[in-house]
Amino acid sequence: MQQFEAVNTAGRILLGPGPSGVHPRVLRAFSMPTIGHLDPEFLGIMNATKQMLQHVFGTANELTIPISGTGSAGMETALVNFIEPGDRVLICISGLFGQRMADVASRCGAQVDTIEVPWGQSVQPDQVEEALAEAEAKGGRVKLVGIVHAETSTGVLQPVAEVAKIAHAHGALIVVDAVTSLGGAPVDVDANDLDIVYSGTQKCLSCPPGLAPLTVGRRGLDVLRARSTKVQSWYLDLTMLMAYWGAERFYHHTAPVNMIYALHESLRLIVEEGLEARYARHRLHAEALKAGLEGMGLALFAQEGFRAPMLTTVTVPEGIDEVAARKRLLAQYGIEIGGGLGPLKGKIFRIGLMGYSCTKTNVMLILTGLAEALAAQGFNADGRAALEAAAVVYEASA
Amino acid sequence: MQQFEAVNTAGRILLGPGPSGVHPRVLRAFSMPTIGHLDPEFLGIMNATKQMLQHVFGTANELTIPISGTGSAGMETALVNFIEPGDRVLICISGLFGQRMADVASRCGAQVDTIEVPWGQSVQPDQVEEALAEAEAKGGRVKLVGIVHAETSTGVLQPVAEVAKIAHAHGALIVVDAVTSLGGAPVDVDANDLDIVYSGTQKCLSCPPGLAPLTVGRRGLDVLRARSTKVQSWYLDLTMLMAYWGAERFYHHTAPVNMIYALHESLRLIVEEGLEARYARHRLHAEALKAGLEGMGLALFAQEGFRAPMLTTVTVPEGIDEVAARKRLLAQYGIEIGGGLGPLKGKIFRIGLMGYSCTKTNVMLILTGLAEALAAQGFNADGRAALEAAAVVYEASA
Repeated sequence: MQQFEAVNTAGRILLGPGPSGVHPRVLRAFSMPTIGHLDPEFLGIMNATKQMLQHVFGTANELTIPISGTGSAGMETALVNFIEPGDRVLICISGLFGQRMADVASRCGAQVDTIEVPWGQSVQPDQVEEALAEAEAKGGRVKLVGIVHAETSTGVLQPVAEVAKIAHAHGALIVVDAVTSLGGAPVDVDANDLDIVYSGTQKCLSCPPGLAPLTVGRRGLDVLRARSTKVQSWYLDLTMLMAYWGAERFYHHTAPVNMIYALHESLRLIVEEGLEARYARHRLHAEALKAGLEGMGLALFAQEGFRAPMLTTVTVPEGIDEVAARKRLLAQYGIEIGGGLGPLKGKIFRIGLMGYSCTKTNVMLILTGLAEALAAQGFNADGRAALEAAAVVYEASA
Repeated sequence: MQQFEAVNTAGRILLGPGPSGVHPRVLRAFSMPTIGHLDPEFLGIMNATKQMLQHVFGTANELTIPISGTGSAGMETALVNFIEPGDRVLICISGLFGQRMADVASRCGAQVDTIEVPWGQSVQPDQVEEALAEAEAKGGRVKLVGIVHAETSTGVLQPVAEVAKIAHAHGALIVVDAVTSLGGAPVDVDANDLDIVYSGTQKCLSCPPGLAPLTVGRRGLDVLRARSTKVQSWYLDLTMLMAYWGAERFYHHTAPVNMIYALHESLRLIVEEGLEARYARHRLHAEALKAGLEGMGLALFAQEGFRAPMLTTVTVPEGIDEVAARKRLLAQYGIEIGGGLGPLKGKIFRIGLMGYSCTKTNVMLILTGLAEALAAQGFNADGRAALEAAAVVYEASA
């Protein structure tokens, strides 16, 4: 058959909603020789990975492991293990990933109640309190509340700690999607008393996509142990995955060995930087970016007070073709940013500053490139004001 | 927190049931810069990967994609998409992976009939004919027959083409596990009229674990389209995965970009070698290994006439501690081989010669190392006879 060329990409500057840029050390770790998934040397790498994940999650949970799939597999794991057919759950929806949670929960056989707020806004704790009280008044009991921490489709950061308190007061588990937030903003699983939290490797952990870190606390384990039916997914069944990642090392499936090398290295980089310094870095560059975008004459999309530091959304000005603007950025600058999803298609840009991509260089570059791309379509983007506004933020922090 | 050391493994000689050794070109491909999963450049890599997978599977099936999980995720995809609650299925069990198929099918809500043969033997086509006729006589209809091509727990290669004919004669789909066989023995999806076939990357494709190539033919698509319920797994839902890998490029989940680089390169290596040459290589070295093991005084475990070329099983002699023997091989030779699973624990060795690991060098090395490890436990292993018997095979083929 036809011979295809080798992959020889020069790469991109990844400033979209993920994947984010990857440190060369992580790429290098990928290329270490593959060893067996039950090799004593690999078991040591698994242990270190687990301990570093516990650190980044802010938890002592023994069940803290990378699921062998991308973030969406993490979502499915976080729901399928704790829902049995007929269970009632409450999902907070403020964007695409909340919708996905509701879809996945319904496929697990749950009766799904939802709270929906307009995309770009945050779910309020009061709404959760009301929904749970209402379900109880009707004689129902909600087993689990699901919420997305940083909603990747809108750039909104939601108040998961408050929602967790309310869920617990009503005897429900809290399941948190930290796909976009983990490693870029505090998730603090134990301090916030979160029961089940999952993430993805390709956002603020700055590792290529392919794994979904997950942690489960005591309440989650109790529910898992009390199940009366088998978990409907064999691949994502935590009762078996625990036995592989635990002391027994019981074979379940073949771990994606080189992906774990890469995650291990990306976690080492996080430990070296320090979590507080890393969060401060994400806050600083997000602030500069947001100031720059406003300085350019653009309007930020996400609700003020709830803006995620690692993912900034901005409204596409009237008359601008956002696909053409993104194509120009890719062609002329090698920069990838995201467009809107679902109802926001064509209406917003999504600019990520995650992990290795979160630098002053990239802030100044995207402001320059975006202003140029918008100007090319006739929008009066003030690129100079944008850079000056960002510079003010950097000077104030110096 | 504590700083962990970087992964700095010197690697192993991988002669177990998988993962197999990985060509340096594949490891190098891993470390190309990550780009976006919707980047035009990545879409080109996806297309090439798909075409090369079609070639290796021997199929023109449009739906031929790598699932974003390991081989077991491929198994789950192959069942969960085609089974609806209450469907009757027939699973052929001759080892652990047949058992797993039955477990996964039952979690999909299927009524599971099974054919079971002693581990080490092959299911016979007549048994399938009888089981299907029996189900029909009772008024049942079997929707799907599942069978493992090369049973990784026993080293037996089963007659999937004959079983497919019988399944079709009874109006059932055939689902084939080609995790261990693909790339090492002909699977020939179209010539054998197989409906749904999945594999894993870490066996004869000689790519690290992490992806599960899958192909679905016309009958499978018809069943998928005729479903009356949603697929219970969101992550593995082929109706949505097709839209991402198809012309629409509709976002589903973030593809494991660097894993696909690696698969792409491992497929390029297969295309370069040529399928017929590759199968001949697997047959030759398997024959030499088997001759050597018998020459050493050991008994092959798998039923004669049904022995898989890429995975040889051999009975552990009376009084030998197989774990100790394998530990010695790992410590003194850096060689990994496998032990028995389930009822075969302690009773067999499993020696893989897959993909990049399938060489004369490795055959002669494992014969030498195994003879030494057995002799160290007092077994009278004739290492010289082993090497001579293997050499005879090589000379005959020269």
